[in-house]
Amino acid sequence: MKKVVTIGGGTGSFTLLSGLKKYPIELSAIVSMADDGGSTGILRDELGVLPPGDVRQCLVALSDTPDMLRELMNYRFAEGGLEGHSFGNIFLSALEKITGDFGKGVEEASRILNFRGVVIPVTLSDVRLFMILENGDVLSGENEINVSKKFEKVGVKKVFLKPVPKANPLAVKKILEADLVVIGPGNHYCSIIPNLLVPGIAEALRKTKAKIVYNCNLISKRGQTDQFSLEDYIREVNSYIGAKRIDFVTYNSKKPGARLLERYRSEGTLVPFQKNTKRNYRVIQADLLSSEKVIRKAEDKIAYTRAFIRHDPEKLARVLVMLLELEGYESILKDIV
Amino acid sequence: MKKVVTIGGGTGSFTLLSGLKKYPIELSAIVSMADDGGSTGILRDELGVLPPGDVRQCLVALSDTPDMLRELMNYRFAEGGLEGHSFGNIFLSALEKITGDFGKGVEEASRILNFRGVVIPVTLSDVRLFMILENGDVLSGENEINVSKKFEKVGVKKVFLKPVPKANPLAVKKILEADLVVIGPGNHYCSIIPNLLVPGIAEALRKTKAKIVYNCNLISKRGQTDQFSLEDYIREVNSYIGAKRIDFVTYNSKKPGARLLERYRSEGTLVPFQKNTKRNYRVIQADLLSSEKVIRKAEDKIAYTRAFIRHDPEKLARVLVMLLELEGYESILKDIV
Repeated sequence: MKKVVTIGGGTGSFTLLSGLKKYPIELSAIVSMADDGGSTGILRDELGVLPPGDVRQCLVALSDTPDMLRELMNYRFAEGGLEGHSFGNIFLSALEKITGDFGKGVEEASRILNFRGVVIPVTLSDVRLFMILENGDVLSGENEINVSKKFEKVGVKKVFLKPVPKANPLAVKKILEADLVVIGPGNHYCSIIPNLLVPGIAEALRKTKAKIVYNCNLISKRGQTDQFSLEDYIREVNSYIGAKRIDFVTYNSKKPGARLLERYRSEGTLVPFQKNTKRNYRVIQADLLSSEKVIRKAEDKIAYTRAFIRHDPEKLARVLVMLLELEGYESILKDIV
Repeated sequence: MKKVVTIGGGTGSFTLLSGLKKYPIELSAIVSMADDGGSTGILRDELGVLPPGDVRQCLVALSDTPDMLRELMNYRFAEGGLEGHSFGNIFLSALEKITGDFGKGVEEASRILNFRGVVIPVTLSDVRLFMILENGDVLSGENEINVSKKFEKVGVKKVFLKPVPKANPLAVKKILEADLVVIGPGNHYCSIIPNLLVPGIAEALRKTKAKIVYNCNLISKRGQTDQFSLEDYIREVNSYIGAKRIDFVTYNSKKPGARLLERYRSEGTLVPFQKNTKRNYRVIQADLLSSEKVIRKAEDKIAYTRAFIRHDPEKLARVLVMLLELEGYESILKDIV
């Protein structure tokens, strides 16, 4: 079986894995560990556990259990002292407490959820994400960065993790053995980059013989990456990897309806893509847009804002599996920019 | 397979079921639903769910899952907003919220925990336990009754559930079809009697052709039933059933060590048993005492006080299965009082 490694966290990884898991491939999901907001943030602060939220989403995406158990894992309490907590986060935190080790807790969870694939925390160190702006201001923690609108105008000087974490050796091993590494989709500074900031991960990405695909986000987040073109995203990701390693980029070619765009305007804009640019990667343009309506739940109070405009899991997976399966694709893919 | 129904709640049922489940019998555990203390009480108040605590203990006792999952279900959080909550209680409450029905939630939990036997809430009505003392004072709620020491001296006039609940039809059906009904062990006023107070349950016990065994508690709880002899317990249970229906009583004949008794003195005393009394039931005297040390966990802050002097699950189950399997036992059991 071909080996596919995904790198990300949050809803983006959930979407990606939900589609990929239907194919007979060996899936490893490397997940960012910098989340400190919402239910996850409260559990980190109060119980001293590692952040369960992103891992939970990947576990649920990959699980092969009855719908009830999946629903249970994503259930959020709407009242009382448990308000806003996701049941799955509580589940992972209890397992970490019992086993005394987040990695082992995730393993036990995988067993209980009977699933296809392996979820790998990018690090088992207890880290926080920081961002230094061009004007010297510092944003502390993923949650503060995620909700802040101020760095758009000021510009980002540097993002880093503190303390400097150790890479999970399993994450490094899986990247080195992979046939295909899939980066994104996901929040640029809060889900994608924090993986690349873990020492050893970028190095493994430079060394691996795997093809590397970058799934460009559909929209740029207002106040964070609004000015980003497709090329900007790739330049940034490559710079954190430390080499021009991205081979392919998937880019959605289907425009969302006017009404949806209007509704979304306060949150972000479509990522622009300039044709006829000289590139050292190939862009696969395809309809990747989900036509499913996203219903925001009232009890989802603690959770981050979810994207209305999102990838379709099946469409995205089809393109990626095509890339994986094609041999000698260089000459075949004439339609790819 | 012979059909065995247990009636109780809490630690007593956990002990009983842990032993019985090793035998090839069809087990149904009917569980009291009046608990309103500790983690259970908080979840009832805050989420408006039915009490998960007793059901959880029975589910764990009957589950055939890996140790990890059992440990998880009984895990109690020691810090933060989740402090004192048992993971299993949160699990059952989330399932009730998702399915919209406590009974269905318990069914889903049984499926997830892959277990041997069925756990049946005695009622699906939202009830509270009340106690009227001889002096007219009223104690409200199982927790208040459980911690109160005052009714010993005053005397109990009446206990009742409010509002008047409907019996779970499945509980009635199982009692009517049973070969053996096992009442207790468990807290007299807080785990045993609340089952008999549900209209329809006592009636089913009067009607069933099953033999009825009463497992007498090892100790009487200080401030509650200290003056109770074996005969008093049976008189009370029979009166709530509305007929002299108890056929057999198990009574522990092994004295706990002096040190254990000393340590336990503030909590209760051994139940006395008068020989050479005329009885319309038979008393099986046997060594039923657990020699296992009970370790009280620091994080178990919300939980009730657990008994140090307790039944041994294997010893108790052996006696009960012997009763079940013996045909024509009336003439054989000469050693039984």
